[in-house]
Order: sequence, then structure tokens, then C-alpha cells
Amino acid sequence: MVGVSRKEFRDLASPEEAREAIASLNLGGGSESVPLAEARGRVLAERIDAGMDVPGFDRASMDGYAVRARDTFGADEADPAVLDLVGAVHAGVEPDVEIAEGECAEISTGAVMPSGADAVVIVERTDERDGKIEMRTAVAPGDSVMLAGADIAAGERALGPGTRITPREIGLLSALGVESVPVRAKPRVGIISTGDELVRPGQSLNSAAGQIFDVNSYTVAAGVEDAGGEAVLYPHAGDDYDEMERLLTKAATECDLVLSSGSTSASAVDVIYRVVEEQGELLLHGVAVKPGKPMLVGRLEESAYIGLPGYPVSALTIFQTFVAPAIRDAAGVQAPAAATARGKMAVRERYGEGRMRLMPVGLVEDGAGDLLVYPVDKGSGATTSLVEADGVVVVHPDTAFLDAGEEVEVDLFSPDVRPPTVFGVGEDDPALSRLLDRIERPRYLSVGSREGLRRLRNGIADVAVTTTGGEPEFDTVELGGWTREWGLVVQAGNPENVAGLADLVDRDLRFINRGTAAGLRTSFTDALATLAEERGQTRHDLVSAISGFDLTVKAHESPARKVADGRADVGLGLRATAEKLDLGFVSLGTEQVRVFANPDRVSKPGVAALETAIEDGDAVFADLPGFETA
Amino acid sequence: MVGVSRKEFRDLASPEEAREAIASLNLGGGSESVPLAEARGRVLAERIDAGMDVPGFDRASMDGYAVRARDTFGADEADPAVLDLVGAVHAGVEPDVEIAEGECAEISTGAVMPSGADAVVIVERTDERDGKIEMRTAVAPGDSVMLAGADIAAGERALGPGTRITPREIGLLSALGVESVPVRAKPRVGIISTGDELVRPGQSLNSAAGQIFDVNSYTVAAGVEDAGGEAVLYPHAGDDYDEMERLLTKAATECDLVLSSGSTSASAVDVIYRVVEEQGELLLHGVAVKPGKPMLVGRLEESAYIGLPGYPVSALTIFQTFVAPAIRDAAGVQAPAAATARGKMAVRERYGEGRMRLMPVGLVEDGAGDLLVYPVDKGSGATTSLVEADGVVVVHPDTAFLDAGEEVEVDLFSPDVRPPTVFGVGEDDPALSRLLDRIERPRYLSVGSREGLRRLRNGIADVAVTTTGGEPEFDTVELGGWTREWGLVVQAGNPENVAGLADLVDRDLRFINRGTAAGLRTSFTDALATLAEERGQTRHDLVSAISGFDLTVKAHESPARKVADGRADVGLGLRATAEKLDLGFVSLGTEQVRVFANPDRVSKPGVAALETAIEDGDAVFADLPGFETA
Repeated sequence: MVGVSRKEFRDLASPEEAREAIASLNLGGGSESVPLAEARGRVLAERIDAGMDVPGFDRASMDGYAVRARDTFGADEADPAVLDLVGAVHAGVEPDVEIAEGECAEISTGAVMPSGADAVVIVERTDERDGKIEMRTAVAPGDSVMLAGADIAAGERALGPGTRITPREIGLLSALGVESVPVRAKPRVGIISTGDELVRPGQSLNSAAGQIFDVNSYTVAAGVEDAGGEAVLYPHAGDDYDEMERLLTKAATECDLVLSSGSTSASAVDVIYRVVEEQGELLLHGVAVKPGKPMLVGRLEESAYIGLPGYPVSALTIFQTFVAPAIRDAAGVQAPAAATARGKMAVRERYGEGRMRLMPVGLVEDGAGDLLVYPVDKGSGATTSLVEADGVVVVHPDTAFLDAGEEVEVDLFSPDVRPPTVFGVGEDDPALSRLLDRIERPRYLSVGSREGLRRLRNGIADVAVTTTGGEPEFDTVELGGWTREWGLVVQAGNPENVAGLADLVDRDLRFINRGTAAGLRTSFTDALATLAEERGQTRHDLVSAISGFDLTVKAHESPARKVADGRADVGLGLRATAEKLDLGFVSLGTEQVRVFANPDRVSKPGVAALETAIEDGDAVFADLPGFETA
Repeated sequence: MVGVSRKEFRDLASPEEAREAIASLNLGGGSESVPLAEARGRVLAERIDAGMDVPGFDRASMDGYAVRARDTFGADEADPAVLDLVGAVHAGVEPDVEIAEGECAEISTGAVMPSGADAVVIVERTDERDGKIEMRTAVAPGDSVMLAGADIAAGERALGPGTRITPREIGLLSALGVESVPVRAKPRVGIISTGDELVRPGQSLNSAAGQIFDVNSYTVAAGVEDAGGEAVLYPHAGDDYDEMERLLTKAATECDLVLSSGSTSASAVDVIYRVVEEQGELLLHGVAVKPGKPMLVGRLEESAYIGLPGYPVSALTIFQTFVAPAIRDAAGVQAPAAATARGKMAVRERYGEGRMRLMPVGLVEDGAGDLLVYPVDKGSGATTSLVEADGVVVVHPDTAFLDAGEEVEVDLFSPDVRPPTVFGVGEDDPALSRLLDRIERPRYLSVGSREGLRRLRNGIADVAVTTTGGEPEFDTVELGGWTREWGLVVQAGNPENVAGLADLVDRDLRFINRGTAAGLRTSFTDALATLAEERGQTRHDLVSAISGFDLTVKAHESPARKVADGRADVGLGLRATAEKLDLGFVSLGTEQVRVFANPDRVSKPGVAALETAIEDGDAVFADLPGFETA
């Protein structure tokens, strides 16, 4: 094998070649025994033949009297057969009677048929009279009796290899007295996290040093378990490359498959390359699929090795597309059924990169109940894309574009994925967060008022949430709204004695603003304009005087948190946020939050539920300081 | 509450009343914290807002050079901007440079943007020359940079209550550094097994005393876990009613819901009635649904109580229909999606009992890929019905019959239920068992040759397997076959010196026969006829002389097992069985096993796979004594 360097992704393998390379790996496939009580969801490793007859005895299947059928021949309501009662047999007890000609014994459902008897007359068709029993019907041999082995007999094939064990199979295994079940072993999948910047959730994070939490390890581990594998997380090696090599070798020894997800650190990737080449074989590097260029497939010691891309959505997409099927195969688990949906593209989307594209998409139902499909691609490693997408559309390399309205098939992330009941876009607002809690499966993207209106107009979103300044210029239905008090968030106790907007302009205070997408920013700019007018200045004059006017952050709490961290003196924000974070607050007014719906979507259950929740606003956000129902 | 006795099922509640009674019970619904690594499949108990910005810093999203965007204005391939290289920033490391006018720093994807820089020029658009960096493109502020909080910002709504945690949600929770996840608590469901005759799998079984393995406890426990509950199995109290009362009370104290499955023992049911009435409240006894008549709903101490029917298929059907939805509600788990299928009734089926019927059905695809639905009702507590059915058709009380060809909706037992790839019926045969192991999802019912042919002709089954005497009188395609050596199975070492059929007729040997459905029985009867002819006797003369000719058992191994148990001297059977059980064997000949397919179904994948497996018979059953490919 020739040496490959990180940059040599010239000859990308086709997706089919990648599948073949992965299929050529051995991911385990052994078997193990588990107790019956733990067998649910596992897959039988071998055929189970009945080891005994079920039932193990001729069994009364009704309450009544055990008889010799020939003694009842000709009996009917008018002319019952009269038999001597010689005893009784109950379930779970060995019979202590034999039935001779002209005799019968009381018998309970489930009891052993006494010797001599070959049928049961059900109790409803009998009368007891003078210690004898009148049979008001004739029975044939075998009536109301389940013969030994009639359910399943010793030696019969009960369950085949590959059967997934559900409650029903557990029932049959119980009936056969199977205590220990031979099942397919779960492939052991070692997960190695690389990258100097990664920190495991629960550990402390140094953002200033560019540390981020390790997303892929737990995400991929959960994917491995969904696919029927056993995930083994190895400790994070950080920037200690000897340790990384040691962990890779250890994982390869202990597992059937080792997965790493691409590091952004070149040297970490080089270590993996070197170890795979020295102690195994690199079968494939780079696949002509977006996102899959950095994918690696090979062998490491006796184990299989696959390297996933680094960005979480890419890593999970490539995992689900290429790796999960191989793990399921090795585990004997069948692919989830019906995990696709057909819908129409909500927008036109261009391609033409010459690579197969696995495009993450979201789903939304339009007013007619038809499914719309829209691309979700925040790029740059956004982790929120993970939950904002519902599945993937496979776009072939020669597709130049998908047109709006074109029908596409979506591979859902799991069979139980359903479109949101309401899809909202717009302002970030704490009262809204609570309202959404009252709705089943809502989806909401905080994109600001203006962008929210744009997406509502596009026909993708069901509702847009706006604040001051966001007035729709197209047909909408207003669902309702509320007001919120906004102003300047300052240090606790207001040590700088900020009294209002003028202090921000006239004094040297460090300010943190919101971005132009935020409605709060519009309220702030409007207030500045008013002050400028009062002073006979331009708004630009005031803006230039504010230190940090251009320092914008994304969400409604973000400026306040910078104040709390001591990185600013004043932040634009809400009274509710200031009180939540125990900060001071200088009120500048109230602004109206309004919720507008696409008129075609008002009868969607989630939209109706949102309207109801807004009407019930007092109950939902009465304890949020500065919030009031409109 | 007035006393109710076991017989008082006169006023059956409607299914809706049963659902309402169950809905009125409190099945838990609390919350608990679990580590992120164990959160997969759980349901969020409360909203998760972002507790931090992600990313926590302005982050380079490409490899390249961190610059002040304004320094690149106007740069292009022909006229690059030349900047001084003042340092490098790598992922996971705090920048030790600041970028002033005319300067740049090398930067890796994921690294913190150094102070002063506001954009990244990707490495592919740069050249290093004489220690300076040529930027061959202009960039705008923010290009190739992900701003702090751009993915999700502190205070933003990340995930709503009720969200099911899949790998994707685990990804977002990881990104937010959430170590411990607030999830809905699993309702604790106590399972009490009643009935003197029940023995737990793994314990020894006394069939003579009518003992059977406890099927419902493990089956229902698995159903509880599928529905998101935690199953707690209580020890079996047997016939000790004080102990049963103690266990019921204990379970009610420890669990949110106590389930018992109906005992066939009247006294056990009476104990349950009494305990529920004394220590709780009986809300409902008996539901107008078949099977559901014996269903009980009530409260026991602070817990909910539901009594299920005793027969396994009934218990599981009632559990899935009435109880599982309530457990899912309490656990916050959504109902499995798309767990229905539409198909056509394969046969006419009568009803008219005035009760709603939950009819277990099997599915099979016809040659055109259409789904046929046939009733599976072996009754009498058969446990094999559990795995021979794929779902349930709800038949309304006023339905007199379902006609053949009528379209029905099937509630599948689980969303991943799929019809078998091949549905076979006929002889029970050990070579066939092995052939079926080579096929994915086969279904096979051992009903004997004649019944097998009848069901093939009916258009339900795909293939029938017959032995001697089973010659189809309708259009079929023969897929192939094999031969098997049959004869008399005797004690090991043949202590009775059985030499052939004549010994059975002339001596006083205890014989065990197969039923008339078995092809083996036909071979045996034919051999007797030949002997009778040789002797100038009638076959009836010979039959009368055989002690046990009418003692018939179900499966191919059953007679041999009676011999092994010492309960017979001679059993009808196969050489393979005799050798498997280390018994003696007296050969009486070979018989042909033939496999016939419905001509419309030959191209079904499972039928084709069976044909291939038969052709490959040498590899499959070469080591089965007495078996040969035809």
C-alpha cells in the first residue's frame, strides 16, 4: 500500500465502492446467550426447535366434566345422558381418578384429562341432579380438549434464526421453558474522539481557548446502539498522539469496529492515517458524496476501521447511510421499515458539484396535508441542524437542481419521524418558549422578525413571530400576541447608575447590541432616533458615540449574559432576562410580540394549539416579569 | 361497592368505557435524571434551553488565514492583497496574536478567531511568498467565521418537553454540555402471575400434574418495556392465597400499575377480586370485546390495577389494545407510527357475537404483491398463535361476516412486522426445518400433507410440503424434494429385538402412531396393507392386533420421544430422529418429500429462495441420517 497524505483526495471512491469496502470488513456476527427476560429486541442466532410438547399433557380447554365421548352419544336437551360423578380434577394437580364407562369427573380449564376420558362437556350444557351429572349434549372425542403437543410438539421448528424477539416470541419461548436464548452478539463498536479542542460533556469548557463539547462521540454511540451494536467510548486523547495511537490499538483489539470522527486537527488525522497504515490497511480514503469526502475505510489489527467526517450532521449522515446498515447486518437486525416519506420541494435548490449529495431536509405539512420538503443546511458544523432536519434527500451527482414543487423521496432519520404540528419562525422570546411547551411536536427557528416574515411569505413556515417593526405586507391571519418590557440590562444594583439611553450615548459604557434581525434592535434604533430628534442630532451621531453598537449577539439573553460575565456594562434585553440572571434593568418601553399565520395553515392542529395557548397566555407567562397578554 | 362474584359478567362494559376507566387511573408520569449516555430512547420531561452559546467563541469554519476583511478589499487573482504573517492559531488553543491592519495569522478550522480579525481567507485562495501571504480574493466581515452563539445562543429554546431522544437530540445535548438529562420516569408496572399450574421458565415442570410454563409474565413484561414502562416481575405465589394477597399489596405499594393475567383457577381470581375490593376499588369487570370478557380495571392501594385474560394471545391482544397506550401516555412515548396494513380477506369469516372482536390474523403476499389477510385462531390458549399472527383486525359488534376479498385494516403487532417471504404448510420434516433456516422470514405451519394441500388450493399458502400419498389434484409447480428413511423407532440397542412390521402385529409391543394428517402415517398404513395382502388378511385385522395403533401424536419426533421416555416400545418415525435421540431403528423404507408451489407465487423471493435451498439440499442435510436429495 502506498503512502497517502491528507491532501490526496483526488480519486474519490464512488458511494457503491464505499459500501463494498465496508461490506468486505468483518464486523463480528458471533452469538451469545441471554436470559429470556433480557432477550427482547435481540435477534435469534439459531433455530429453536421445541424441546417438549406444549401442552405437555392432554388439557381441558373449558370448565366442565371429563367424559368418555361415547357415553354422551345421542344426548340432547330433551334426553340428557346421566353419568356418575367420580371426582374432580383441578389445574396444576395430578388427577387421582380414572373415568370408566358411565362415569365423569368435574374438570377445570387447564387441568390434566384423567385417564379414560377423551372429551369435556362444558359446564353450561350440564346439570347436577341427585349427585349425578346430566349431559345435555353429545360430544366427540377431543371436544374441549387440547391434546399434548397440539400447540407445538417436541422436535417441531418453533422459531428460525434471524427472528427478532418481540413480546410474541418471548411468549412462545416461555411456553417452551427456554430460559437462556441464543442471540446474535452485538457488534462491539469502539468510538475514538480526536481533536485537541474537544471536551466531554460534564467537564469544564474553556471557550477562550476554543474548546467545544464533543458532539460526535455520544451521537454516534447512540446511532450504534440504535443499529443493534454495543458502543464503547474510549477516553479522549486530546493532543497526546502517543496516547491516541495507544487508544486506537486498544480499541482495535477490543472491538469489531473502530469509528473515529474526523478531527479538524491535521496532526490528529495524520496519526490515524499512520496507525491504520502501519497496523492495518487503508482500503479507501474519500468518497464522492457530500458530506463524505473525508471518509476513511480500512482495517486496524483484526478490527474494521471507519473514519467519519467531523461536522456532526455530516458524521451522523455518513454513519446512518454507510455504517449503520453494516452494523445492522452484523447484528442481524433488519432495517427499520417505512422510514421514507414523499414530499414536494418547497423551494428550488441548485447542485451540480459532481458528487452525490446527502441533503438534510426538514418536513412541514401544508394546509392540504401535503408534505413540503425544505433544505436544512446551516453548514459550518451547526449542531442545531441535527434536530432541525427530519431526514435526507439523496441527490444524484448529475442533478443540476431540484425545482420547487418537484417530488422527492426523503430517507427519514427514523421511522417514527413525523413533521412538526406547527412550524414557526421569527423572534426569540421567553414567553413563546413556554407557549411552545404546550404544543406537541412544534418546531421553531429563531431567525428574527424580518427573516421570519420572509419565510412565512415563502410558504414554508406556518407562523411567524414578530416584534415592533415586523408588519407583514402579504396576506396573513394574526393569531394574537403579547407585550414585553425591554430596555438596558446592567450589572446587579446598577453600579454605573445607568438611567437611560442618554447615558449610553454620553458616557463611556461598554455596550452589547442585538443583530439587525432582532425586533429588539429595531425598538432600540427607534428609541435612538427619537433621542436624536430631541437633541437635534442625527441617529448616526448617537450610534457612533456608543461603544459596542456593532457588537451584536444572537439571542435574547446573549447581551445580558455578557453583562453577567463582566464583559460589558450594558446589554440590550428584556426585564425578564435581567431578573432571571439577577441583573439590574433600566426600562425603555414595551414592545408588542405578534404571531401571524399563513392563512392556508390556520386549521393545522399545531397552529390551532398555538392560538389557544396564546389566548391562555395569562396562565402561561404571568410570572415572567414585564410580560403581559395583549 | 357491592360484591361481585366471578360469574357476574352480565353487564359488560363497552371498549370505550374500558378505555375511559383506564384513562382515569394514574399510571405515574413523574420525571428523573439520567446521564446523557443513557438518555437514548427516553422522553424529555421539560424544555431544555441553551445554557451557553454554541460555539462559545467566534470560530474559524475553514483552514486559512484570519484577516481584517477590509485589508482584502479589491483583492483578486490578478492583484492579490499581501499581508504580513504574524502568527498561527490552532483549534483548542487560545490565540496569542492580535491582528492589526495589514496583518494576518494562519488559522485552522475550529480555532478561535484572534482579536482584530473578522474573516478568514481560505487557504486555497492564498499563496505564501517571501514570508508574506498573498490573498487572491476579497472577503467580507464574517466570511468563513461562525460567530459565537450562531449555532444556538444561551437562553434559546433547544428542545421541548416530550421530545423523544434520538441520536440527533443527543448531539444537540452534547453540544450544550448537558451531562444529566431530565426525562419522563418510566411507569413501574408490577406483574403478578396467578394460577396453581404455572411454573417459571427455567424451573422444572411436572406435566403429569398439569403444570405449564408461565407464558404471560414474560410476554407482558416485554410488552410493558416496549411501551416505555419498567416491568417488575413478582414471584409466583402458586396456590398460597395469603402469599398472593401479600404480593398484590406489595406490588401496589411499589408500582404505578399492577397487572395480573387471568388464572384458570377460580380461587386465585377470587383472591384478586377480594383484595382489589378491600384495598382499592373495582371500576370495571368484563369488557364487550372478544377476547376481553375477563378483563378487570380498578385501583389497588395507590396503584392502578388491570387484570388481563389468561390465554396468551388474549392477554397480549388486550394488553396491546387497552393497556400499552396508557403506559405510553404515562411514559410520554408516542405510539409507533404506521403500524397498520391494508389487505384483502383470504377467506370468508363469520362473526355475530354481539361483541367487538379483536381477530388475530396472519398476512401473506400473493403473486401480484397484494396483501392477503387470514384469521389465525387456534384457540384454547395456543401459544404458537402468538408468532403465527402478524396483527389484529378489529371487527365491530354488528359485523355478521367478513367476505373473502373484502378489504380490511390490520393493526400490526409492531411497525416492523412484514409478511413472510414464503408461507409454507404441510409435513413436519427435519430437513425442511434446515432449509427454512436459509430463508429470511419464512413462515411454516406443520399441518400434515393433506391439510397442507388443502390450504395451498385455498390460495392462502405459497407452498405445500407433502410426503407419500399427497398428490395435488390442482395446478401446482413442483419445486423439488428429497427422500427420508422411515420405520420403527425402538429402545436403544433394540432390546425387544424388533425386526419389522410383523413383530408389531404379532407381539404385544406398546406402539405410538402418528395422526392421520401425517404422511408418515400413510406410508405406515400402506406397508400394513402390503403385509396384510401377503398374509391373506385384511388391513383391519392387522390394525386391531397393534396395541396403540390409535395412540397418535403430533410431530415427527413425538413417537420417538415416547419411546425414549419408556412410555412405548415402538414408535413410528425417521432414522434421523432415532439417531438424534440415541434410539434404535428398524427401517421400513423411504418416502419422498415433495414441495409444491402455487403457480402464481413461484416468483416470490421466499419461494425462489426455498427452491434454491432444495437444489442445494446436499449441503443442507447431508449429515441427516436417512435423508437424500431426490
